[in-house]
Amino acid sequence: MITHHCYTTEPWRLCESELDLDVLAQSESLFALSNGHIGWRGNLDEGEPHGLPGCYLGGFHEVHPLPYAEAGYGYPESGQTVVNVTDGKIIRLLVEDEPFDLRYGHLARHERVLDFRTGVLSRTLEWTSPAGCTVRIASRRLVSFVQRAVAAIEYRVEPVGGPVTVALQSELVANEPLPSPADDPRVAAVLDTPLCPEEDFARDTRLRLVHRTGHSGLRVGVAADHLVEGPEDTVRAAESEADVSRLVVTATLRPGSPLRLVKFVAYGWSAQRSLPAIRDQVEGAVAAARSTGWDGLLAQQREHLGHFWQCADVEVDGDATVQQAVRFALFHVLQAAARAERRAVPAKGLTGTGYDGHCFWDTESYVLRVLTHTAPQTVAPILGWRHDTLPAALERAAQLGLSGAAFPWRTITGAECSAYWPAGTAAFHINADIAEAVLRYAAATGDDGFERGQGLELLVQTARLWHGLGHRDADGVFHIDGVTGPDEYSAVARDNLYTNLMARKNLRAAARAALRHPERARELGVGPEETGAWRDAAERIAVHRDETLGVHEQSAGFTRFERWDFEATSPEQYPLMLHFPYFDLYRKQVVKQADLVWAMLTCPEAFTAEEKARNFAYYEPITARDSSLSACGQAVLAAETGHLRLAWDYTWEAALMDLANLEHNTRDGLHIASLAGTWIALVLGFGGMRQYEPGPSDDSADDTSDAEGASDAAGTGGLGFAPRLPDALSRLAFTVLVRGRTLHVEVTEDTARYSLRVGEQLEVVHHGEKFTLTADEPVERPVPPPPRPADPGRPPGREPGSSVPGSDG
Amino acid sequence: MITHHCYTTEPWRLCESELDLDVLAQSESLFALSNGHIGWRGNLDEGEPHGLPGCYLGGFHEVHPLPYAEAGYGYPESGQTVVNVTDGKIIRLLVEDEPFDLRYGHLARHERVLDFRTGVLSRTLEWTSPAGCTVRIASRRLVSFVQRAVAAIEYRVEPVGGPVTVALQSELVANEPLPSPADDPRVAAVLDTPLCPEEDFARDTRLRLVHRTGHSGLRVGVAADHLVEGPEDTVRAAESEADVSRLVVTATLRPGSPLRLVKFVAYGWSAQRSLPAIRDQVEGAVAAARSTGWDGLLAQQREHLGHFWQCADVEVDGDATVQQAVRFALFHVLQAAARAERRAVPAKGLTGTGYDGHCFWDTESYVLRVLTHTAPQTVAPILGWRHDTLPAALERAAQLGLSGAAFPWRTITGAECSAYWPAGTAAFHINADIAEAVLRYAAATGDDGFERGQGLELLVQTARLWHGLGHRDADGVFHIDGVTGPDEYSAVARDNLYTNLMARKNLRAAARAALRHPERARELGVGPEETGAWRDAAERIAVHRDETLGVHEQSAGFTRFERWDFEATSPEQYPLMLHFPYFDLYRKQVVKQADLVWAMLTCPEAFTAEEKARNFAYYEPITARDSSLSACGQAVLAAETGHLRLAWDYTWEAALMDLANLEHNTRDGLHIASLAGTWIALVLGFGGMRQYEPGPSDDSADDTSDAEGASDAAGTGGLGFAPRLPDALSRLAFTVLVRGRTLHVEVTEDTARYSLRVGEQLEVVHHGEKFTLTADEPVERPVPPPPRPADPGRPPGREPGSSVPGSDG
Repeated sequence: MITHHCYTTEPWRLCESELDLDVLAQSESLFALSNGHIGWRGNLDEGEPHGLPGCYLGGFHEVHPLPYAEAGYGYPESGQTVVNVTDGKIIRLLVEDEPFDLRYGHLARHERVLDFRTGVLSRTLEWTSPAGCTVRIASRRLVSFVQRAVAAIEYRVEPVGGPVTVALQSELVANEPLPSPADDPRVAAVLDTPLCPEEDFARDTRLRLVHRTGHSGLRVGVAADHLVEGPEDTVRAAESEADVSRLVVTATLRPGSPLRLVKFVAYGWSAQRSLPAIRDQVEGAVAAARSTGWDGLLAQQREHLGHFWQCADVEVDGDATVQQAVRFALFHVLQAAARAERRAVPAKGLTGTGYDGHCFWDTESYVLRVLTHTAPQTVAPILGWRHDTLPAALERAAQLGLSGAAFPWRTITGAECSAYWPAGTAAFHINADIAEAVLRYAAATGDDGFERGQGLELLVQTARLWHGLGHRDADGVFHIDGVTGPDEYSAVARDNLYTNLMARKNLRAAARAALRHPERARELGVGPEETGAWRDAAERIAVHRDETLGVHEQSAGFTRFERWDFEATSPEQYPLMLHFPYFDLYRKQVVKQADLVWAMLTCPEAFTAEEKARNFAYYEPITARDSSLSACGQAVLAAETGHLRLAWDYTWEAALMDLANLEHNTRDGLHIASLAGTWIALVLGFGGMRQYEPGPSDDSADDTSDAEGASDAAGTGGLGFAPRLPDALSRLAFTVLVRGRTLHVEVTEDTARYSLRVGEQLEVVHHGEKFTLTADEPVERPVPPPPRPADPGRPPGREPGSSVPGSDG
Repeated sequence: MITHHCYTTEPWRLCESELDLDVLAQSESLFALSNGHIGWRGNLDEGEPHGLPGCYLGGFHEVHPLPYAEAGYGYPESGQTVVNVTDGKIIRLLVEDEPFDLRYGHLARHERVLDFRTGVLSRTLEWTSPAGCTVRIASRRLVSFVQRAVAAIEYRVEPVGGPVTVALQSELVANEPLPSPADDPRVAAVLDTPLCPEEDFARDTRLRLVHRTGHSGLRVGVAADHLVEGPEDTVRAAESEADVSRLVVTATLRPGSPLRLVKFVAYGWSAQRSLPAIRDQVEGAVAAARSTGWDGLLAQQREHLGHFWQCADVEVDGDATVQQAVRFALFHVLQAAARAERRAVPAKGLTGTGYDGHCFWDTESYVLRVLTHTAPQTVAPILGWRHDTLPAALERAAQLGLSGAAFPWRTITGAECSAYWPAGTAAFHINADIAEAVLRYAAATGDDGFERGQGLELLVQTARLWHGLGHRDADGVFHIDGVTGPDEYSAVARDNLYTNLMARKNLRAAARAALRHPERARELGVGPEETGAWRDAAERIAVHRDETLGVHEQSAGFTRFERWDFEATSPEQYPLMLHFPYFDLYRKQVVKQADLVWAMLTCPEAFTAEEKARNFAYYEPITARDSSLSACGQAVLAAETGHLRLAWDYTWEAALMDLANLEHNTRDGLHIASLAGTWIALVLGFGGMRQYEPGPSDDSADDTSDAEGASDAAGTGGLGFAPRLPDALSRLAFTVLVRGRTLHVEVTEDTARYSLRVGEQLEVVHHGEKFTLTADEPVERPVPPPPRPADPGRPPGREPGSSVPGSDG
């Protein structure tokens, strides 16, 4: 997309210089605005043409039956799907009674700009109607980071040449017809007109609609108010029906005398609150927004983003494309999570309906991995959402005959919605992924209250799951059988190494945390016997190696499977799951996405450097990279093992997933995890940042002053760096937040410079050397030359960048 | 059911002495009549009350979409379901304008008898209407084995006490309302009124309806003609509408002067033939039946069954229940297959709609195993049906990226209908099961023409599947990964031993058969290189043993899985798949049904006696027996390993599956494979009959005079016996057909007597000793005492007979 001729490369903005309807749907995702609570796709103000109209609210969904031709015990019966709520974006324009529609007349100019520092989407255009009237339109739009319920639009229209009579229709529209109803007729029936009207209202410049979903019983209210500035003869009229509420403004405009409309929109929804309560909630929010005013909202937005960029910016000298892409990525990651608060962060954020708006392990393993070190205040509320869903996870575990919590593979509310258990229920690793996010957040922030509260409970209930899920063999080795790791081309396997190592981390962390918070642990029924059993299981967990090949096995026996015949697979047959049956994928050596490689990222202390190098070289040629989650992990391990050029190519791929529409589905929404992966590739890859787990020696029962605990006054946060740049870059600089400190890291070809911008002191590890950094004394260290291993090669046709025009690493 | 007080134990009949509506649905299955082409459930003549009205035609089905909440490559999109076709059984009666309905009035007597030697279902009753009129009714019903398209009913009504005016309505009824529509609304929509009327006709005593299915486009015609005998004032009138064609006979009857109606019904269906062609077909068939007459049909039926019993009867002295049950079983197995000809034999035969009327491996592995030695003329046409579906199997294999043929796990037409691939597509063993049936039939009959024709092609295309499905490891061992064996609680496993041994047999047999028929093999593109590759793969196929435990592994690593916690499983939690998720079943040591044990039955030469004993003892306590296919195989191996009492208990269970309604679903149709299993348990279990595969030495390329080939003049058919009786039996006698000979085997506690009733000579093996039997010289041999191994035990609550009242072995 960024390679599309309409787009230009700029460091702080995404700029579209003309409109190409062929890529309209993708552009709606790229230009989506969100604060994590409200999501507005980048639809045109006038509503049409569109790829997919979309307004979403975090957690707002409809339910529908999940069909099975052959049902089984424990299959979820009910699915959940994000709903396109009442559209508050729409401002239609009539020019002398002709509707402004880009598909007709002549478009002399059309530009859109998304500015990552102002958080505003701007649009300017000049259009001549079929009848020959020319107007200039300028609109700006924001979804407020500060006022969670509020979005706003400034719309300005002005004639060119001579006077023109215009009518602006600023609307709230419910139940917009969508271009692609669901395949399943029952699902389509539920989602066709999902909102049942409860109340509509229009008076003066104020509009309001309240609806309720038919099956999930959620109530949504939307209110709008307007400022109108125009010539003296400007006429306003408001009207309302069940599914549309409308302010009509008519005026005769002259060149130099525009009509300006500011629209304040507020959303609210609830499963419990009454119609009057929702009504008052949105009216209150819209009144507050109007009182802040358009300029006030702009200022709040700029200030909020200013703080964010101060702590989060990544400077990439040497590649303007990736420089732009990583800021685009961080902006959208922030948008997905900023005010999500106690709601799920969907895989697509609130930018589209892909994956039905479901949340997966992407949230904890990718998105929170970035935010923990760039916007940590967003993390606890999102983990708080997981904690809120603990009752459902406990119930699910009980249904499955397991102890503790079994969090859902995909969900909006916390109930499992995965209809294919080998890649859903069996992907138990999500529980350890959640635990790791807890652990990471607690270690990076020292948020003791969180750890003692929700954190400990999440760690304990997931540890219980692992302890009950595994079993001991005759030799006492602890096995976890029948699970699916990140690689979805190898389901229901024995001792998936990623799962086992993450379970080990989970078990150890739960035991350590219980020791730090003995009273709270007792409340949760955790005693020394249980923590002892967890530690014991952790220490005896199975780790399979193929001694002949000298590599770890992704799962027991994996390296003895037949190798996928990549040579006979044509480039058009990727992604493989669309062209080959699961049974064939599962029984062969072919990896959809980083799995063992991802384990080497998340559990670095479990592997020696040599093992990492050998493992990476073995798995690289059998990894199809059929998931957008894969490239960033491969980038990190490629960088660590010295394949710097390859790491750079993978970084490109992660960075351009949506900007270049690499998987041809950006129209359905952005790949938020891959966007997060851009930061991961740069900071964990070329910055070599790792958060190390305390070793088993730190697990002893008398270790009450655990260095990794929340009581960690020295403040290492367990962070180490091993920076190394690819040839393409002359400099990489980034900031990470840890334990209240702000650490700035600047890497050039031969030197790394560490400075503490906020905080008194911090222990830092550079390529294995530990030193203490203090406030006013930046430290420079040389960057050792990397090893130069041989390129292991990729499956034919799966070179990184092979589908990325212009990648020149 | 047989333990229900309404049923009595008789050697040659199933007798019901009174009517209990609580078991009406089950009785409809037990009393079902079929010739394999037409199936009539044992519904009451008057149509109501009913459990499930049912008239089925072999192969006649409707199609419907298969829903998936998450679809995958290669998932079948279209399902097939047996359709209740036009009901030709119905004869309603009005007694003085009150409908005869057993639920009203008073039923003084009601008896039904299914006679296994006459093939006739008889019913006699005496009923007093609510208004006080008493009538006696006697009806008889048959579905002709000789006239494939024909069924017939004789109906007689006579007043008791005084004169009564009656009206008989003999009908053809299409689209009968069914009590249980499908769960899925789309399937229900398709099946609610599956037949679209094309033509209806009624004249004199003749009725006819022609319909067509809405989606599969199959046309079905039904015609009826009647003989009416009654008093002089008897009036007849025929009328017809789209979905009902009716002959009404009214008469005033006096005691001693009955009204008698004989109804001849003929069915025909086709996907291709025109309306006039179908019309003429059924009219011709009904005219032929009328010309044969009721007595003629009775005589034909008796004669056909006489021949069958001469070759198939099993005498069980010492247990009257099992004596009755095995004849009931053989009768229904014959009914399911007799005239199936080039159509599938469904798991339920044509006795109900269970499993949607689909055919599974049951056909080849269970049903044909019996018929090959008792009614071999039925076998080639059924294997011919499989051969007819070869194009679909080749196409399916290609879709899955495989060579050769991949036959469907469940189907009516030959297209895969399994919507859950781990227990469908992955159950590749069905291909070897088909090959084994080919092999068994050719060896037992010497039908050289069949082997050279359809047989060779089936062997070749299945061998190709195995060769392509497996792969060599670095040591040259041939592995088949990612497949599901008979045990559906262990899916997608590596080197399932049953599958591997059966694939080996398949590969070897294909190579041998290609050698015997070189010209035909060349036509199929088979050369020495390919047969060499098959033999080589066969010789190097993986066989996994757990050396510590000293047993074979059901699949690689199976014995290292966690053992299912049987002690914590309550009896109500069986069958386990209704109470536990697949993921948990798959990763633990729990066996749904005989798998390795079944391998020891089908591939006896692959195990030593000691291995069989150890394997049986290991797998017995972890076998849940949650499939009706399991007990008979366990019976056979229990008998072989000396657990004779246990073998007898399992024989009971197989025998009483439907008669005692052990799985509580006999209402959906009979378990034809378990019925076949009764014979398997007796003849292979206590008779110890085995068909041995030629050893690898017989595979050498110069072995052109292969003793097992169709040119086998000595006529062993590879048959051996190792008879041994349980304490419960004083004598077991059975007949097996082999190579045109009729061998009679009679076993008592200490002696086995072999006599050749038809044929000149036959080689027989008795407990390892080979001898030649000649026409007029029966041979007696002593029965060696069995080993007396310790009882390995079963899962708690899963003792055989625990749900079989009255089992006293």
